[in-house]
Amino acid sequence: MIIGVLGLKGSYSEKAAMQWIEKNESNEAHLLEYCGDIQDVFNMLENGSCDIGVVPLENSIEGSVGVTLDMLLENDVAIIAETIVTIEHCLLSRGKKEEIKVILSHPQGLGQCRHFLKEHFPGAELRTTGSTSHAAKLATEFEEMAAIASPDTAGLYDLNIIMPDIQDRKYNHTRFIIIAKPHSSAADSLMVKDRQEEARKTSIIVYLDKDRPGALYDILGEFARNDINLTRIESRPSKKVLGDYVFYIDLEGCISDAIIKHAIYNVRSKVGMLKMLGSYPMFDPYCEANQVYMKKSMPSTD
Amino acid sequence: MIIGVLGLKGSYSEKAAMQWIEKNESNEAHLLEYCGDIQDVFNMLENGSCDIGVVPLENSIEGSVGVTLDMLLENDVAIIAETIVTIEHCLLSRGKKEEIKVILSHPQGLGQCRHFLKEHFPGAELRTTGSTSHAAKLATEFEEMAAIASPDTAGLYDLNIIMPDIQDRKYNHTRFIIIAKPHSSAADSLMVKDRQEEARKTSIIVYLDKDRPGALYDILGEFARNDINLTRIESRPSKKVLGDYVFYIDLEGCISDAIIKHAIYNVRSKVGMLKMLGSYPMFDPYCEANQVYMKKSMPSTD
Repeated sequence: MIIGVLGLKGSYSEKAAMQWIEKNESNEAHLLEYCGDIQDVFNMLENGSCDIGVVPLENSIEGSVGVTLDMLLENDVAIIAETIVTIEHCLLSRGKKEEIKVILSHPQGLGQCRHFLKEHFPGAELRTTGSTSHAAKLATEFEEMAAIASPDTAGLYDLNIIMPDIQDRKYNHTRFIIIAKPHSSAADSLMVKDRQEEARKTSIIVYLDKDRPGALYDILGEFARNDINLTRIESRPSKKVLGDYVFYIDLEGCISDAIIKHAIYNVRSKVGMLKMLGSYPMFDPYCEANQVYMKKSMPSTD
Repeated sequence: MIIGVLGLKGSYSEKAAMQWIEKNESNEAHLLEYCGDIQDVFNMLENGSCDIGVVPLENSIEGSVGVTLDMLLENDVAIIAETIVTIEHCLLSRGKKEEIKVILSHPQGLGQCRHFLKEHFPGAELRTTGSTSHAAKLATEFEEMAAIASPDTAGLYDLNIIMPDIQDRKYNHTRFIIIAKPHSSAADSLMVKDRQEEARKTSIIVYLDKDRPGALYDILGEFARNDINLTRIESRPSKKVLGDYVFYIDLEGCISDAIIKHAIYNVRSKVGMLKMLGSYPMFDPYCEANQVYMKKSMPSTD
């Protein structure tokens, strides 16, 4: 199976892919294809160059990855799984801290370290790259350059860890989604396997065609009345006119559950557009096999 | 009155400030203070270096400006007005199109032209600046550099318009907010003036402290039951743990209206935190004085 991941060797998407492969306990051989940016992962899926893709969806500090949300709407893809990766950004360079004039990273990496950058490198030039791992590779060119990337990339690209753990909050996690073409052999084989698991999540995109008071409330009511828990609701511009949005909704339950199917059927009749992104196992970060949040270092929600 | 705006001369924030001053018909002298980034505008307000600030909040293509949302939560500020600016990004350079190797802009500018960049400059190095106008100024350094910025900056910084109208959608608008310290003389004088206007909007931030099914639905119900229209609902990570959010809600009506006051009172009793950002005149982009959307070129919502 060919898996398209964002970035080069050492990227967080690669880590997400490996984490998912391990959990999936598949005996099938996997080949990773590294993609320059998020759009390329979707393009590779579209033209059949890969069977599944792994892209970041949201981060606990910097929020949604807009490109991924847009691509989920624009492309015919299904979400078949999710996984959460612990992010530990470091400042990596061939040079010394006082020499650094240029800092490279993915926009999310720069955003997650905004306070750090403002405090330690207020005059540095910031460059955007398609992935954090690509930033690490580019930072090898000159000693005055540094990258914000994972500690793994230091060894891979022969860079020194100038400053570890530089993100603005101690706890930093990114949710990645594993995507496939709907009804492709990759999607179907994985969906069948997953159907046996209990904890399930369903992702949809809705566009409310009427600008009336309570339109969103009405939609959410279909879920609330049936005690269906929404784990996330995110708006994104419809790109038609300012103030017009599409909503990305994640809910607990599987589309094969009668109660979920019924609620979504009702929602569909009330909205301008409803796109089903898929039902898939919910990643439990506290479960022993996943160990994203260790019990002893569990983030407080106070 | 000292107004802190994002960017250098020719920035879209400057345009927003001028648009607001003109509409406000104030006879008071205004002095613009140009700030390096959004955080600086908030910092200047905080330390009293400016009376009001003008920052971008959301764009019709690229969505919310995360830094502004975060700063609204972290700082003690009030929104006293909003204005919508038409964005017309151009590619500006001293050099020729085929020479361009580096493209600079604010992350929002790069995001709004993502498809354009991928199509025309797939190999270009992308650099992030604090504002589009700063990108224009920096692009004067070398002929191989170009900026994504407003056509106004071409004349200001002696650059050529290499390609006009490069954003991914024809219609591109950004909502700016005008902010002040709550109960400051600037805020109070403007609030009193605005109180006479009819169309009003109120912005709040809520944090739901309980992860129970229907918590958000319950909150929205307080508004829906009273026919209070929500014009926007946006989630942003609480930054505590992945999957935990604060919600930014804009609604029609003024906090001095009994019905709004009552609904917000009820919401406050149900949430972990409610921050009032203020009530202010709603900017009508279709009204003749504003003319953001001209009747003949009104974007279709089909």
